[in-house]
Amino acid sequence: MNKLHIFSPATVANVSCGFDAMAFALENLGDEMIFEKNESGKVTISVIEGADLPKDPEKNVAGVVAQAMLDDSKADFGVDIQIIKTYKPGSGMGSSAASSAGAAFAINKFLKEPYSTLELVKFAQMGELAACGAPIADNVSAVLYGGFVLIRSYEPLDVISIPTPAQLYVTLIHPQIKLGTKEAREVLPKSIDLQTAVSQWSNVGGLISGLYAEDFNLIGRSMQDAVAEPVRKHFIPHFDALKAAALAAGALGAGISGSGPSVFALSEGDVTAEKVKQAFDGVYKDKGIDYKLYVSKVGKEGVKSTGIL
Amino acid sequence: MNKLHIFSPATVANVSCGFDAMAFALENLGDEMIFEKNESGKVTISVIEGADLPKDPEKNVAGVVAQAMLDDSKADFGVDIQIIKTYKPGSGMGSSAASSAGAAFAINKFLKEPYSTLELVKFAQMGELAACGAPIADNVSAVLYGGFVLIRSYEPLDVISIPTPAQLYVTLIHPQIKLGTKEAREVLPKSIDLQTAVSQWSNVGGLISGLYAEDFNLIGRSMQDAVAEPVRKHFIPHFDALKAAALAAGALGAGISGSGPSVFALSEGDVTAEKVKQAFDGVYKDKGIDYKLYVSKVGKEGVKSTGIL
Repeated sequence: MNKLHIFSPATVANVSCGFDAMAFALENLGDEMIFEKNESGKVTISVIEGADLPKDPEKNVAGVVAQAMLDDSKADFGVDIQIIKTYKPGSGMGSSAASSAGAAFAINKFLKEPYSTLELVKFAQMGELAACGAPIADNVSAVLYGGFVLIRSYEPLDVISIPTPAQLYVTLIHPQIKLGTKEAREVLPKSIDLQTAVSQWSNVGGLISGLYAEDFNLIGRSMQDAVAEPVRKHFIPHFDALKAAALAAGALGAGISGSGPSVFALSEGDVTAEKVKQAFDGVYKDKGIDYKLYVSKVGKEGVKSTGIL
Repeated sequence: MNKLHIFSPATVANVSCGFDAMAFALENLGDEMIFEKNESGKVTISVIEGADLPKDPEKNVAGVVAQAMLDDSKADFGVDIQIIKTYKPGSGMGSSAASSAGAAFAINKFLKEPYSTLELVKFAQMGELAACGAPIADNVSAVLYGGFVLIRSYEPLDVISIPTPAQLYVTLIHPQIKLGTKEAREVLPKSIDLQTAVSQWSNVGGLISGLYAEDFNLIGRSMQDAVAEPVRKHFIPHFDALKAAALAAGALGAGISGSGPSVFALSEGDVTAEKVKQAFDGVYKDKGIDYKLYVSKVGKEGVKSTGIL
């Protein structure tokens, strides 16, 4: 194998109640990446489309991850990477995670898969560390495992793959405003009162139960976040209106995708998910804010090869 | 039906990470209760064995619950209750919940089952309110639903029944010391830092996943409590030694049962659960503290009729 095309999905982290613990992958929104082996012994990035990201491999998360894996495995080859982004970085939809985890997946293929999925998460975390200043595992785990994931523990890293009901769809709106992860982190409370914490973990338990039992109503009523959403929603224009519109259109629940500014809603079935898209559109269309809308099935598969040459 | 014998199980609430949110029922440890319909129109309690509890129906949790249900349903009959306790109140094993929920179950039978299980939980909560000063739902829900339960929400009350792996056993040690629920509540932190909270709900997610997936190892590694155990364990003589001995004997995990003083451990299979019992015994046998030991399967069924006359 000398050349590998992959699809590396966008992801939604937190999923309301599962703040800093849960995430899921999308089926039909994500980056295309093309990896080509060469004799140079070096990592290069020849093409980046759709985003203004650095081509210097030491400053690009895909480059950082690829180099770390080539070093760790003492590989005798180099790799050139092309990245075609279909959604913008800074969306809260795991753009850096798609690149990081995509690189981890592809380089592992070139190496004939010596690394476990959990080990790939650890390499991909190096990309997240470079991008966000913290080795966040939720988005990259969703990319690599597919479907829903739970980061049960960071020390030691323990990623749990949660079953995904087949008819679960996500609608996303990305207001094209700037909101840094750092800024979104700074508003978080340092501590929360015990009663709030109990209600949050009760909802996490409900969401996980709903996913296993394919109980869509339970998934929906568990999608409550008393921790991040109350303080972060003020960064997102018309957040309350978007959420209300999604629920009125039949969504199971809605919340902030990762640290924002994108807002996501889960629905049972694509018909409802499309109605939610129209509802989101209805809220934003006259507001003078640029935005993008997406509908996707929750992606069971995660990152995947789309062509081997 | 004029006379009903029931078995109302002991329960373990919290289950380490699931503080104030989770509980499970035991299969072979609990109260026997005998209910007899009569023409008096009143609730009486004629027999209490095995515990020094009030026979005044207004001061006994079973009496409080029975009266509330007879009033609510405008019943034209009275009920006499006999309670035979096989384990002591104040154990942290849901003694008041067994009586409260047992009464709710039995009176509903006499009334030809007009109330849903969730409505029975609400009646049983009145008993918990009388016993503990708060309408705690976890133990009574485990009695009424059986197996594992999650209280996803109190307002509105939302109880989720979680599947129980068939080979899941519990070992309990009850140090016969006095520890009030109020005293155990007062040491709890008012708030917890966000990172601790995240790790707690990650473990709740892991425990629920482990129960659904019958992944015993995941059940075990999720049984971590950073909230109540660190402050409550000081009430329980040799808690750390008990926990270490249980784990060394092969238990999946161990923690405080409810608000204590009983300590529980979960194991895969009865052989390991018996070894954990010996391990608990080994820690306590020379310490000059009275104690009782129990082994039971986790009880899928909860409260049940044992004889209709």
